[in-house]
Amino acid sequence: MATAGKVIKCKAAVAWEAGKPLTMEEVEVAPPQAMEVRVKILFTSLCHTDVYFWEAKGQIPMFPRIFGHEAGGIVESVGEGVTDVAPGDHVLPVFTGECKECPHCKSAESNMCDLLRINTDRGVMIGDGKSRFSIGGKPIYHFVGTSTFSEYTVMHVGCVAKINPEAPLDKVCVLSCGISTGLGASINVAKPPKGSTVAIFGLGAVGLAAAEGARIAGASRIIGVDLNAVRFEEARKFGCTEFVNPKDHTKPVQQVLADMTNGGVDRSVECTGNVNAMIQAFECVHDGWGVAVLVGVPHKDAEFKTHPMNFLNERTLKGTFFGNFKPRTDLPNVVEMYMKKELEVEKFITHSVPFSEINTAFDLMAKGEGIRCIIRMDN
Amino acid sequence: MATAGKVIKCKAAVAWEAGKPLTMEEVEVAPPQAMEVRVKILFTSLCHTDVYFWEAKGQIPMFPRIFGHEAGGIVESVGEGVTDVAPGDHVLPVFTGECKECPHCKSAESNMCDLLRINTDRGVMIGDGKSRFSIGGKPIYHFVGTSTFSEYTVMHVGCVAKINPEAPLDKVCVLSCGISTGLGASINVAKPPKGSTVAIFGLGAVGLAAAEGARIAGASRIIGVDLNAVRFEEARKFGCTEFVNPKDHTKPVQQVLADMTNGGVDRSVECTGNVNAMIQAFECVHDGWGVAVLVGVPHKDAEFKTHPMNFLNERTLKGTFFGNFKPRTDLPNVVEMYMKKELEVEKFITHSVPFSEINTAFDLMAKGEGIRCIIRMDN
Repeated sequence: MATAGKVIKCKAAVAWEAGKPLTMEEVEVAPPQAMEVRVKILFTSLCHTDVYFWEAKGQIPMFPRIFGHEAGGIVESVGEGVTDVAPGDHVLPVFTGECKECPHCKSAESNMCDLLRINTDRGVMIGDGKSRFSIGGKPIYHFVGTSTFSEYTVMHVGCVAKINPEAPLDKVCVLSCGISTGLGASINVAKPPKGSTVAIFGLGAVGLAAAEGARIAGASRIIGVDLNAVRFEEARKFGCTEFVNPKDHTKPVQQVLADMTNGGVDRSVECTGNVNAMIQAFECVHDGWGVAVLVGVPHKDAEFKTHPMNFLNERTLKGTFFGNFKPRTDLPNVVEMYMKKELEVEKFITHSVPFSEINTAFDLMAKGEGIRCIIRMDN
Repeated sequence: MATAGKVIKCKAAVAWEAGKPLTMEEVEVAPPQAMEVRVKILFTSLCHTDVYFWEAKGQIPMFPRIFGHEAGGIVESVGEGVTDVAPGDHVLPVFTGECKECPHCKSAESNMCDLLRINTDRGVMIGDGKSRFSIGGKPIYHFVGTSTFSEYTVMHVGCVAKINPEAPLDKVCVLSCGISTGLGASINVAKPPKGSTVAIFGLGAVGLAAAEGARIAGASRIIGVDLNAVRFEEARKFGCTEFVNPKDHTKPVQQVLADMTNGGVDRSVECTGNVNAMIQAFECVHDGWGVAVLVGVPHKDAEFKTHPMNFLNERTLKGTFFGNFKPRTDLPNVVEMYMKKELEVEKFITHSVPFSEINTAFDLMAKGEGIRCIIRMDN
């Protein structure tokens, strides 16, 4: 391509300060170096993790920064040593990578790559410790190796999943983070047997995707648990058959669920990150065979507490990261699930804005409206 | 048989008071009622659980009582409705039963029978709420449905596993509790892959059986963790290749194990019941794929605590009861493992005494000497 090996000038939404609206800037995007890929982003969406680090509450502030990690795009050029993708390939950037060489990547059970595991404190490329973004020579920090709120971005090749070029990027872009996380938590980790009962704690995007995963796996009762009752109608579309609002009960939620299910649910998936919900999600599974899966990211000072007899009675507690999907190996198959109509993606997409109105997506999330807002880079 | 339907007078070792030596008495053993079996016990052994309830520290005292639950014997007669065993069958009594009808028994994953799950507070038969033992008309309480410290005992048929009559009862009698518990915790629950590294916390009979299970499963490094270093030489016979005494280290044990194993063991099995050891056993498994299994019975006020991120990093924590073996369905196969020389039982048996010297078995356990002491009923 004409731009290969050259600096590209393009638009990016830059966060200059914690919690302040992003501003649209012209940035310079350096060419990809060894094992790096430069990608033209076509669609991106906004995830809570972007907002969390943009607010920088209790986090190390790192600004100016280009956020964004749920996206879809096309490879513009590749750096030295890159053989897995080529210019023109359709890709999903992923906030956590897969080097294919470390013990984690070589383990069939793990997706927590030693080299490219998510690092929210690193604002630079792993190769040379520098940024590929700059404005007037001043570097702008990256975010989780993706920084998709830019028309062009540079990523390590291990953070790029090559997908079916026929997949509509304006839909499948949402599969690169939260939706796959919830889906995989159910399908890959909780593995509800056909006809089983599953409780989902937290009906945000990840929880709804976990419900979708339970539905796909063939669960017959899917009980949504959320403090916000307005989410239940939406949740029906994702397979939820029943709803429990802890505020409506004086009994502990685990007891409410046990009473509804003759002793406990077969599987539970916790998608809030609240440690009390985690304890409830564990204690509500049936003895003898119940499996609880933790997905939500806890507060750094959180402490999980339970009586060990709850384990001795043959309950299992697991946690998962990105739904146990290996990003480069497995994400193309998640896209294929959508292409085969096994997985419904459209219902997660409730809003769409042009790139110039990206702050609207932040406003919608702040108000808790909708599930995913797609940001269209080309208009 | 000549005794069928009649009261049998025989010898039994009766505990009249908490912590006081058992005394040999002539007891009357009533015939089995519906769904009950009367068994001539040939060999029994002593397990910590007998001692625990005999000491009755923090337990509801229930005396006079006939303890004993690890044993082997021959069916003398059966009550109405019993079709699964017949007089002459060789059987292992089991402290926890399998009714084959409840949701737990019907689940492939559970062995925690709703009807016949261990109940240490019940000293009578489940059918009529009465004892089958008496002395001069005064009832003597049962223990966990087995009471094998008697030449004859009566059990629910669901607590009797019919085994290969060629199996030597003086050996396989130890398979009805602790040995199977540890063995199953490794083989059925931890499932260490071939070549993996396993940590075993606590090298008593159950822990050694867990090591034996890890050895059988093909683990290549088996690290015994115990505060008593003298146990290590014994533990080598059960496959332990390394040993960690927490007293020898200033660092937390989980860190010591992580340092030895490039980030953590693949599997751990906790066999002490100490909640701190449980936490260590969980936190020492490798992120991405580690599985910890709790076996030891915790104190009633124990609280398991850990940072939930230890789960989110893809660790699994499970508990197991009786090694997830379904007693009637699976124990005959454990006996076959011994018959095929896959499982070595002899090395668990370190002592043997005649029934008249049963208190010697209690003394040996109090002193922590040996693993299992066989009590021979016939001499």
